[in-house]
Amino acid sequence: MTDFNDLPAHVWPRNAQRQEDGVVTVAGVPLPEIAEDYGTPVMVIDEDDFRTRCRDMAAAFGGPERVHYASKAFLTRQVARWVDEEGLSLDVASANELAIALRADFPADRITAHGNNKSVHFLRDCVRAGADGLGHVVLDNAEELVLLDAVARGEHRVQRVMVRVKPSLEARTNAKIATAHEDQKFGFSLATGEAFDAARAAITAENLELVGLHCHIGSQIFDAEGFALASERVLELYSRIHAELGVSLPELDLGGGYGIAYTEGQRPLDVDKVAHDLLTAVGKTAADLGIDAPAVFVEPGRAIAGPAGVTVYEVGAIKTVDVSENFTRRYLAVDGGMSDNIRPALYDAEYDGRVVSRFTDEEPVASRVVGSHCESGDILIDDAQIPADVTTGDYFAMAATGAYSYAMSSNYNAFSKPAVVTVRAGEATLMLRRQTVDDLLALEG
Amino acid sequence: MTDFNDLPAHVWPRNAQRQEDGVVTVAGVPLPEIAEDYGTPVMVIDEDDFRTRCRDMAAAFGGPERVHYASKAFLTRQVARWVDEEGLSLDVASANELAIALRADFPADRITAHGNNKSVHFLRDCVRAGADGLGHVVLDNAEELVLLDAVARGEHRVQRVMVRVKPSLEARTNAKIATAHEDQKFGFSLATGEAFDAARAAITAENLELVGLHCHIGSQIFDAEGFALASERVLELYSRIHAELGVSLPELDLGGGYGIAYTEGQRPLDVDKVAHDLLTAVGKTAADLGIDAPAVFVEPGRAIAGPAGVTVYEVGAIKTVDVSENFTRRYLAVDGGMSDNIRPALYDAEYDGRVVSRFTDEEPVASRVVGSHCESGDILIDDAQIPADVTTGDYFAMAATGAYSYAMSSNYNAFSKPAVVTVRAGEATLMLRRQTVDDLLALEG
Repeated sequence: MTDFNDLPAHVWPRNAQRQEDGVVTVAGVPLPEIAEDYGTPVMVIDEDDFRTRCRDMAAAFGGPERVHYASKAFLTRQVARWVDEEGLSLDVASANELAIALRADFPADRITAHGNNKSVHFLRDCVRAGADGLGHVVLDNAEELVLLDAVARGEHRVQRVMVRVKPSLEARTNAKIATAHEDQKFGFSLATGEAFDAARAAITAENLELVGLHCHIGSQIFDAEGFALASERVLELYSRIHAELGVSLPELDLGGGYGIAYTEGQRPLDVDKVAHDLLTAVGKTAADLGIDAPAVFVEPGRAIAGPAGVTVYEVGAIKTVDVSENFTRRYLAVDGGMSDNIRPALYDAEYDGRVVSRFTDEEPVASRVVGSHCESGDILIDDAQIPADVTTGDYFAMAATGAYSYAMSSNYNAFSKPAVVTVRAGEATLMLRRQTVDDLLALEG
Repeated sequence: MTDFNDLPAHVWPRNAQRQEDGVVTVAGVPLPEIAEDYGTPVMVIDEDDFRTRCRDMAAAFGGPERVHYASKAFLTRQVARWVDEEGLSLDVASANELAIALRADFPADRITAHGNNKSVHFLRDCVRAGADGLGHVVLDNAEELVLLDAVARGEHRVQRVMVRVKPSLEARTNAKIATAHEDQKFGFSLATGEAFDAARAAITAENLELVGLHCHIGSQIFDAEGFALASERVLELYSRIHAELGVSLPELDLGGGYGIAYTEGQRPLDVDKVAHDLLTAVGKTAADLGIDAPAVFVEPGRAIAGPAGVTVYEVGAIKTVDVSENFTRRYLAVDGGMSDNIRPALYDAEYDGRVVSRFTDEEPVASRVVGSHCESGDILIDDAQIPADVTTGDYFAMAATGAYSYAMSSNYNAFSKPAVVTVRAGEATLMLRRQTVDDLLALEG
């Protein structure tokens, strides 16, 4: 067990540090000050961290446009503007995500649309966007291909598309977020020939332009092996398309899934190394197959937004429970919970939490960090060693909450969605205000 | 396998029926008509079903005020008004739930406040409510007891309280929603003497009036045994309090957890029988202990709201996947998913889904009903037998979604929260309008 006063650099935002007085700042702004000014729980986003990760990804993969930020991880208009300013592309997976991106003036030609069940309205929004439709629409099933072609014809446009391929891999991750195996909802099967048929249909369709194939092997992947194996299988299809249809597809999208460290013991995926290995593998496989190596695109969401965000709570009720004769557990309740972060309950996700308002010096004790919801499964950190002097009124922050926390937040128990504050160069700016009871009642007739 | 055109009466709303033309109506309103008028997904609530369950519970437990509707299951001002009109009491578990109830003019003296981490603001709202504070505040820890006493003193009021007791039971339900065992966040331990100490402190406190003890053994309980056992243990504490402190506590709150049927094969808990058995057991135990039997209060949420609601989706993309050489699975995508119903992903909850726009006649095939989110775990019904002729454009409804679906809904993938429509005597009324993109952006600075 390391010092609870540490902030592991591979888990916490780049600009997080503990001052000499024990207070944690992010980008020079003390977290307790943000908690006082905006209330708790509050999510704090290190803008520089977010932007730096965008740049690191862009450098690793050969250009910012090759990197699509997956907006499902966390999207506001401000986030879309950051992504745009960094020159990255943007993934959307619903008509509303697309609408938000367009309202942030994100260039349509750098947007890719995903989804296993795109409505005709969503497809029409895609084709109508910008001067010439979206950058890419990723086709997920045969009916959608026909429908999009018809929609594009109606709009007198030719929509650039990719075909999503299921390469039949079992990625080493949680079953709920693994997406390359056969028995799931996304994409066309490589094994059955569906993917080839879809590519041929897309090439044939008058108002579609097939620019490449897409695959996504899952989330929280920590080694390059799965990506390399997936690319190998998909490139064999490029080779077949080239041989049988005479078409060289210029692009290959290998999706996201770049693992980040939620806890001190985890190591984030080394993006530079994985990018290097992956691009090398793609080049080699293409050469072996005698085809031109396509340009590789990737879709990180969590790897950009996740580590940039922390959630600050105030510690409330504390209890010590006799679990057995020889084991007691300290329950620390904080003023949020499964409404602002469903990941522990949903995926058994782990997190690193620390007191950010002062040093804590006592010996650690077995602890469980729980929320304030009326549900026993409302647990944020199931099993942690936390100093015995952590007490009511302390500010307690959980790291790496920038992705899939706010994005999946609910109003369970009528809890307000928390405020979200961005920090940069010593300044805090409100990005999303906390919901009020009036907001909660706004949908009532 | 029974007929897919059936609507099992113990799962579907009381006033659901399939017409001769195959269309399903609820309270005389065709579900396809609601889908056309309000869009999909849409939650439809059978008002009469909701109210009838309120009355049935009231009759079973000896009076409407003895039954507290647990607002965490589903709360709007309209729902609070229905509960009030039926004479039931109301549970709230957050300051916002209390605020919504009070804005619906729900009488404060019939409201009980819960929570493992009530803030001083929430406690103050409780004490200040109505002419004389809330009906009950359920104390969850020793510091809260001291704090509430101080708050009540400051307001020159005496707040009626209960003490939440952990009776050390392992109820037969999902670990995430079991709440009577020791190793969880709620309540005072019976075993360690904490509960007795809390009762004594509450009796001693000048501005608190202890009226009873509270326990809650979990959710989705299907037999009376657990309730009876819990009441037995808690009544022993009544006896000790009577013997050692000379106080007869007049009330006993045994919480909620009344199981409902989500699928045809499940049987809902028989409320009349359980109530009878439970009240008999309480009477007998009290007599055996030589104390007056306290009035029994219960807190159903799901058992009132759950079966009253159905969610109507439109079927979109359909795929057949080769899972193995001998097994194919049909994926039916609908236009909602884990944002409007997280329970399958969170609790492995099962549901009964049927086509509601027409008869379906073909042989059933192994099917999985999935949502439209960009996540492979976005599954609504994992494994169902659904007729092969179910197709794109059909309206497909899932039953028993009235509780913990909308209440836990998110905006994942920027999905709008669905519309909620109530039906009664052939009329549909909008209760909650569907969110717009403007609503989603309303919190941005």
